[in-house]
Amino acid sequence: MIGITLGDPGGIGPEIVFKTFASQPISFNYVLFGAKSILSHPLIRQYAKKLPLTIIRDYNEINQRPDNLLFFDCGELPIPFCIGSPNAINGKASYTFIMTALQAVNQQLITGIVTAPICKESFQMAGIPYKDHTSLLKIETQSRRVSMAFYTPRLKTVLATIHIPYRDVPDALTADAILTAYENSRLFSTYLGLLSPKIAIAGLNPHAGENGLFGDEEQRYLLPVIEQLATEGKPLLGPIPADTLYHRAAQGEFDIVISLYHDQALIPIKLLGFFDAVNITLGLPFLRTSPDHGTAFELAYQDRASLDSFKAALRFLEKYQKK
Amino acid sequence: MIGITLGDPGGIGPEIVFKTFASQPISFNYVLFGAKSILSHPLIRQYAKKLPLTIIRDYNEINQRPDNLLFFDCGELPIPFCIGSPNAINGKASYTFIMTALQAVNQQLITGIVTAPICKESFQMAGIPYKDHTSLLKIETQSRRVSMAFYTPRLKTVLATIHIPYRDVPDALTADAILTAYENSRLFSTYLGLLSPKIAIAGLNPHAGENGLFGDEEQRYLLPVIEQLATEGKPLLGPIPADTLYHRAAQGEFDIVISLYHDQALIPIKLLGFFDAVNITLGLPFLRTSPDHGTAFELAYQDRASLDSFKAALRFLEKYQKK
Repeated sequence: MIGITLGDPGGIGPEIVFKTFASQPISFNYVLFGAKSILSHPLIRQYAKKLPLTIIRDYNEINQRPDNLLFFDCGELPIPFCIGSPNAINGKASYTFIMTALQAVNQQLITGIVTAPICKESFQMAGIPYKDHTSLLKIETQSRRVSMAFYTPRLKTVLATIHIPYRDVPDALTADAILTAYENSRLFSTYLGLLSPKIAIAGLNPHAGENGLFGDEEQRYLLPVIEQLATEGKPLLGPIPADTLYHRAAQGEFDIVISLYHDQALIPIKLLGFFDAVNITLGLPFLRTSPDHGTAFELAYQDRASLDSFKAALRFLEKYQKK
Repeated sequence: MIGITLGDPGGIGPEIVFKTFASQPISFNYVLFGAKSILSHPLIRQYAKKLPLTIIRDYNEINQRPDNLLFFDCGELPIPFCIGSPNAINGKASYTFIMTALQAVNQQLITGIVTAPICKESFQMAGIPYKDHTSLLKIETQSRRVSMAFYTPRLKTVLATIHIPYRDVPDALTADAILTAYENSRLFSTYLGLLSPKIAIAGLNPHAGENGLFGDEEQRYLLPVIEQLATEGKPLLGPIPADTLYHRAAQGEFDIVISLYHDQALIPIKLLGFFDAVNITLGLPFLRTSPDHGTAFELAYQDRASLDSFKAALRFLEKYQKK
């Protein structure tokens, strides 16, 4: 049983979820976490009425219902609700969808979660102190070593740092940050069925510093950790100049790349998989994936948003959540 | 008349130049700047004997000879010469090739230069104080506003900073650095025949800082310059989050991207044009291009190096050097 949170009601989350299920066979058991009000929107209603949807309001019903498409009504949303911009009520609602899904995980009623996009501003307006799903899930599940990762068929990458200023990256590359990214790269490999994964880490400076000529973080921060891992029989290749590394990985030379900062990972991910990249949170007690895009308010409820990334996120979870 | 410097004699420069000319019609007038000793290497001799090569030793001969493939013997290299590793004699020789070509430009005997790769370590061993072609050419020609740029069919980018440590980038993004990159982007556009180019500048921080949430260099360094340019009727779009910008540019939404640092430019360039990207120096008194790779010592004189990037560099210069 997989959980799916509908995300910010004002964005494209609800339509990509319902349109996806209306467009393909339902091959698994799912619980959608949302608010019943969303079903009243004409576009959602149009897709929902094609679906064998069962509305529930209680955790006990998840196991009791034989249906394979449950809709958990978490309440908390008026009709009509605000569409197309950040909004406090929507922020609160999307937070409730996630927290309800987390409860269901805790009760072992679902084994993984696909999250539709939330809006940071909506969260702020609602007074919810999280910037993104990753930090929310990390703190709410009390997980210590969590990494953001991305999957596209040609490139898999795990990030050592995420949403921090460019300037703060070098000093955030602590041994703990690199080791966390490495352990989660190994975990990623097991999901992917790789027994002897080739994991490589990017350099920070141009040409990976060229032996200290343009910066020495490679020697100061990265090499000691790589050497420590080597003594434990854990091979980590690099640091490799970032400009060639992603090309080489895309050609199949490496299985997983550890990226040191947000744009280093996301520039190649968006180039190689703009429509079908999957965002994965590794190191939680369950597997969580999401599409690699935001709420796209400007497209909301226009029936135009691409389903590809959400479908890829769903497919990834269906394939790997049991491992 | 185009000049071509053979680069470090120990690397793949000589073979890619001779093999290229032996493999395609000679449609232009060229002067190769090298040392006669290089012609004695069996692999080079094999290609050179297929070519209508005229050896000269004097600038006056450039105009006097009707031949369209001149070889300027700059001397200074023993037989046999060192192959496959950094070497002081090769460093000195490759420097002499460049300086001889610069003299020919000064005398208006050639109108552009394609440079085969040099080796930074060879330069160091020879006591030559330059790290790369770009800085050498900038200083030797006393040009004030020089930019490194890259061309592939799907992406054109001009760099605001080049070979400096990651940490030094934010404070190197001065108004002068951004304005230089912008002026050279306009120049690049005229080479490409674009009358109203769409030029966009990348952000530095994740999501271009998201209004200061993850860093404020966008507001402090970039926006004031963009606003200043706008008052002069010079449109510069951005700053745009780097992760989506290169994808959007590759889709045709922007003509030229101003990249803020080395890997921001080179990760997408190597992904989109690993074998055929052209490195261009803008802002010199002449146009200079080069292949987007190094000396590749491990491949030298094995007849295996790809010609694609050198051919692309030559083609670019042939097409645009008169503008």
